[in-house]
Amino acid sequence: MNQIELFAPASVANVSCGFDVLGFCLDPIGDIMRISKTNTPGVTIGNVSGQTLPKDPQKNVASVAGLALLKETSSEFGFQIDIDKKIKPGSGIGSSAASAAGAVFGINELLGNPYSSKELIRFAMAGEAIASGAAHADNLAPVLLGGFTLVRSNETLDVIKLPNPTELVATVIHPKIELKTLHSRSILKPTIPLNKAIEQWGNLGAFVSALYTDDYDLLSRSMEDKVIEPYRAMLIPKFEETRQAALKAGALGSGISGSGPSIFALSKGRQTAEKVGIAMESIYKNLNLDYQLHLSKINTEGIKILDRS
Amino acid sequence: MNQIELFAPASVANVSCGFDVLGFCLDPIGDIMRISKTNTPGVTIGNVSGQTLPKDPQKNVASVAGLALLKETSSEFGFQIDIDKKIKPGSGIGSSAASAAGAVFGINELLGNPYSSKELIRFAMAGEAIASGAAHADNLAPVLLGGFTLVRSNETLDVIKLPNPTELVATVIHPKIELKTLHSRSILKPTIPLNKAIEQWGNLGAFVSALYTDDYDLLSRSMEDKVIEPYRAMLIPKFEETRQAALKAGALGSGISGSGPSIFALSKGRQTAEKVGIAMESIYKNLNLDYQLHLSKINTEGIKILDRS
Repeated sequence: MNQIELFAPASVANVSCGFDVLGFCLDPIGDIMRISKTNTPGVTIGNVSGQTLPKDPQKNVASVAGLALLKETSSEFGFQIDIDKKIKPGSGIGSSAASAAGAVFGINELLGNPYSSKELIRFAMAGEAIASGAAHADNLAPVLLGGFTLVRSNETLDVIKLPNPTELVATVIHPKIELKTLHSRSILKPTIPLNKAIEQWGNLGAFVSALYTDDYDLLSRSMEDKVIEPYRAMLIPKFEETRQAALKAGALGSGISGSGPSIFALSKGRQTAEKVGIAMESIYKNLNLDYQLHLSKINTEGIKILDRS
Repeated sequence: MNQIELFAPASVANVSCGFDVLGFCLDPIGDIMRISKTNTPGVTIGNVSGQTLPKDPQKNVASVAGLALLKETSSEFGFQIDIDKKIKPGSGIGSSAASAAGAVFGINELLGNPYSSKELIRFAMAGEAIASGAAHADNLAPVLLGGFTLVRSNETLDVIKLPNPTELVATVIHPKIELKTLHSRSILKPTIPLNKAIEQWGNLGAFVSALYTDDYDLLSRSMEDKVIEPYRAMLIPKFEETRQAALKAGALGSGISGSGPSIFALSKGRQTAEKVGIAMESIYKNLNLDYQLHLSKINTEGIKILDRS
C-alpha cells in the first residue's frame, strides 16, 4: 500500500458536564485526507483545499502529529499529506483533532499498523498541542476510537471508550466567527467553587451511568455545566437563546461544543434532532451572521478509510 | 403488623473520587432498631443501648427523620424507636445515616409502605441534617437502596443505583477518635483548583464506567482524591501510612471513609481484603490508640428486616 484516503471526522468535546474529559464523534462532517508514501523521510504537506493551512511541516497540526509518530518508528520512506479541509479551524468541533488524528491514523496504516488506535492518541496530541496551546485528548479520543470517550487522565492517557444509546442524534450549529481555543481557555478562572465542582462531577457520573443504561431522561438531567459555560457563553452570540430554543424543541441537552463557538444539542431520534435544528436556526436566521447547521448520528467507528492503493 | 426489627447498616461515602455524591453500603456492621406502634401520635425514643443518644425526639436523628415522614402522612398512631447503636457516631461510616434511614424504613413498613425506598431518602435527610449540619444523601442512598449509589443532585434528590462488581470486598479500620462531620467540613476551602477538579471528575466518570464493566484495574486507577483528602488527611493519625500499607497489600484503592476518621480500602476478593486488613492493622497496632477493623462485602440489599410481629 502506497496511499490511503480517509475521512477524519469532527467531534464534540466537553458535552456540558465533562469539561476536558468527555467527547463524542460526529458522522457526516469531516476532512478528506490523502496520505502517500514518498522517498524523502519526514512528513510534508502537499495540496491543501477548503481552508488555508501552514505548509511548514513544523507548524501544520497534521505533519507535527505525523512527525511525532515517526520519531518513535523507523521508516525508510516519508509521507505527504494532502488535506481537503472541510472543518473550519476555530469552529469548536475538533478541527485540529481531525487533522492530527487523520495524519497518525493514515501513516500508521501505511506502516502496517504498528500502533493501536489508543496508542495513536499520544502522537496526535503533539499536533493538537500546537493548535490549542495544551495537549488534550478530549477531541482526539472520540475521533480515533469512535463513539463517546472519557479521558480519565491526560498525563497517562488513560482513555475509556463508552457505550452510546443508539437513538442519540446530535444537532450542531456553527456560527461563522472564529474562537481560538487558546483564548477561550484564557478566560477561565484557575479555581472554581467546590459546590459547583460537586454538581459537575455528580452530573458526569450520572451521564456515564446513563450511557450504559440507555437512560435518556437521566442523560438529559445530567447535561448541565455551571462551571465553564457561564464564562464562555458570553463569547458566543445568542448562546443562551439558542440553547433554550433547542431544549424547547425537545433536545435532551444543549451546550457549547468544545471551546465554541459551535453549539451542540443531543436529541432522542432524528425527527426531534431535525426540529431542534430548525429551532436553533430560527435564532441565527435573524442575525447578520453566517452559520452552518449539521445533523449527525453518533459515529461509533471514528475515522473511515475511503480508499487505499 | 405492630412492630418491626431491622438491621440498619453502616456505609462508606465519597469513595475517594466521589466527594458528596458516591457511596456504598457495608454488610456486617450496623445498628439494630426496633420500631413499634404506639397510641400517642408522634415519634418517641425508647431504649438506647451501645451509645449515648439524645432522647428528645427533636434532637435524635432517628426521630427527626421519622417525624419528617409523619408530617406528610396521616397516621392515627405514633411510633417508638429502640436503638441498639453499634455504629459509633463520628466514626465516618454513616452512623447518623443508619439511624435516619432505619427509622423511616421501619415507620414506612408499619404504615404499609406508602413510599418507595428512593422517596424515603428525602425524609431521612431531615435527620441527617441535624448530625452533619447539611442535608446530604451520600450515606443515606446506599443504606436505603443498597450497593453503590450516586447522588446526582442533592437538591432534587436525583439518585442512581449503580451496579457492583461481585468480587469487591471492603476493609475498614476505625480509629477510636471522634471527628464531627461538621468540623471535617469546615476545614475545606470554598474553592478548588480547576485542574484538580478536572482530574476528580475524570476519575469519577471512570469509576462509574468501571462498575458497569467489572473493570477492577480501572476502578483501581480511578480511586484518587486530590481535592478533599489532602485537607482531611491531617485530622487522621497515620492516614497516609495506613493507605499506603493497604495499597501495598494489594488493595485496589484506599481513602478516607466519609469525613473520617475511618479509613476504607476496596479489594478484589476476600483473601486480599483480609491481607489488607492485617496491613492496616499493623500501622495502628503500634499506636496507643484503640481501633476496630471490619471486613465486608458490598451489601446490595441495604436495610434488612430481622423480625416483624
